[in-house]
Amino acid sequence: MLYIIGLGLGDQRDITLRGLEAVKECEKIYIEAYTSLLSFGLSADGLSTLEKLYGKPLTLADRETVEEKADAVLAEAQGSNVAFLVVGDPFGATTHTDLVVRARKLGIDVKVVHNASVMNAVGVCGLQLYRYGETVSIPFFTETWRPDSFYEKIQRNRALGLHTLCLLDIRVKEPSLESLCRGKKLYEPPRYMTINTAIEQLLEVEQVCRESAYSEDTECVGFARLGSEDQMIVAGSMKQLLTLDFGEPLHCLVIVGKTHPVEDEMLEFYKLGGDGTQKKDNGIL
Amino acid sequence: MLYIIGLGLGDQRDITLRGLEAVKECEKIYIEAYTSLLSFGLSADGLSTLEKLYGKPLTLADRETVEEKADAVLAEAQGSNVAFLVVGDPFGATTHTDLVVRARKLGIDVKVVHNASVMNAVGVCGLQLYRYGETVSIPFFTETWRPDSFYEKIQRNRALGLHTLCLLDIRVKEPSLESLCRGKKLYEPPRYMTINTAIEQLLEVEQVCRESAYSEDTECVGFARLGSEDQMIVAGSMKQLLTLDFGEPLHCLVIVGKTHPVEDEMLEFYKLGGDGTQKKDNGIL
Repeated sequence: MLYIIGLGLGDQRDITLRGLEAVKECEKIYIEAYTSLLSFGLSADGLSTLEKLYGKPLTLADRETVEEKADAVLAEAQGSNVAFLVVGDPFGATTHTDLVVRARKLGIDVKVVHNASVMNAVGVCGLQLYRYGETVSIPFFTETWRPDSFYEKIQRNRALGLHTLCLLDIRVKEPSLESLCRGKKLYEPPRYMTINTAIEQLLEVEQVCRESAYSEDTECVGFARLGSEDQMIVAGSMKQLLTLDFGEPLHCLVIVGKTHPVEDEMLEFYKLGGDGTQKKDNGIL
Repeated sequence: MLYIIGLGLGDQRDITLRGLEAVKECEKIYIEAYTSLLSFGLSADGLSTLEKLYGKPLTLADRETVEEKADAVLAEAQGSNVAFLVVGDPFGATTHTDLVVRARKLGIDVKVVHNASVMNAVGVCGLQLYRYGETVSIPFFTETWRPDSFYEKIQRNRALGLHTLCLLDIRVKEPSLESLCRGKKLYEPPRYMTINTAIEQLLEVEQVCRESAYSEDTECVGFARLGSEDQMIVAGSMKQLLTLDFGEPLHCLVIVGKTHPVEDEMLEFYKLGGDGTQKKDNGIL
């Protein structure tokens, strides 16, 4: 049996009782390491907070493990209970669908334990989830690679009055260009896109495309560490948010569409100088 | 302090450890009753499963309590810790934003505990969440009220190749027309729209609008009791799904847009006669 278990967004306490029960039934526990694990108490010396809670050791599954060693992981799941722990919800990201498909093709039972993901937790800012259009991803620009496919999608959402969730790039355990050239595996340090970088890139693309999909005056909501005790949520124009330091990752950004009165009322709490942003804990447990 | 705590989708074991800790700190616990509580072990004799787990009594908060008696609930939260439990995630539905706004205006601290909602858990079928367009709601048609605003939205999503999540109507504790006329409060029995009714209404609207937004051959995924142990997920054309009995509520429906290969591979498991639909537990814990 392969269990794919969502850990939620904040820390070790965000696992569900169902998820914890399943973990305890497993002989081997992998935890995915392609997204941020910072808030889950994972330090250099290992996965102490989670391991203490589960009462057993964890194996960090980086991209390499999952993509290259999936067969070995799945072989284990044929003879015993294996858990694969995922930050957020198992299907909030694309990465896990492929693992499930491979498991099922091998006839391995797969059980899923859901949890909160960024895709639904952004609802906390008051913008209604059914008023969002297509989600976009903002990748890190490089000297030579500055893709702007998100521009058209944002433009379309805004023309329809819909909000746009922008997922910001995460680069964890990326082979360095130098190491690829030399045939040796060396990794870049992890990089997480900040709200500031995302807005800079968005405005740069607007400067190039010049179709007024949005501007520096466009209302947005910036989220840092959503679901954690020290989450930071601020509503303001792109220009305003550019001046802020949102601190540690993960960050994401919502570009606000046409709002209803109850959405406006909630956003007020998150505006600069508003009630929400003055509080240290910013309305989250 | 007002805690708004998501219970997740399945049963009492879907609360998070963080949520359970918060419940235990509260003197008064309300549980919302406008969506389905069937799977949470709530029978006529009270909220036994949850009350046993929490070690304290619950108060059922129907629409009336929240809309008419919110002031009383909030007054309690000014002097003590009050929990408001919500099926799914607190902000998966619109209902709770208003409560939060009112609380904050009164200066009451609000803390949110996130959980899975239908909006992200539909990811289990393999269709990627970032490939969804605007979510639509399908309301129960009556003799005289047959709104079709969802049609245009579905058409737009499909033109862009995006999937569409259809949330199906729930009518809990609706005053009966007769009782409204007589000035007495009598309620209709609860009604939950089935996938079959949703598809019938969708096809009826297509017959009226005739713009080929979709047809009886359009690929869909039907979900019943998503996140529960006896969930049922089947992929097939509207025509095929119309022949099935999905059983107890809640149901929801996804109209499939343009798919990527990995999405197709996952959908295969849920097709009629496929691997997923043959299994009793259908891939969920």
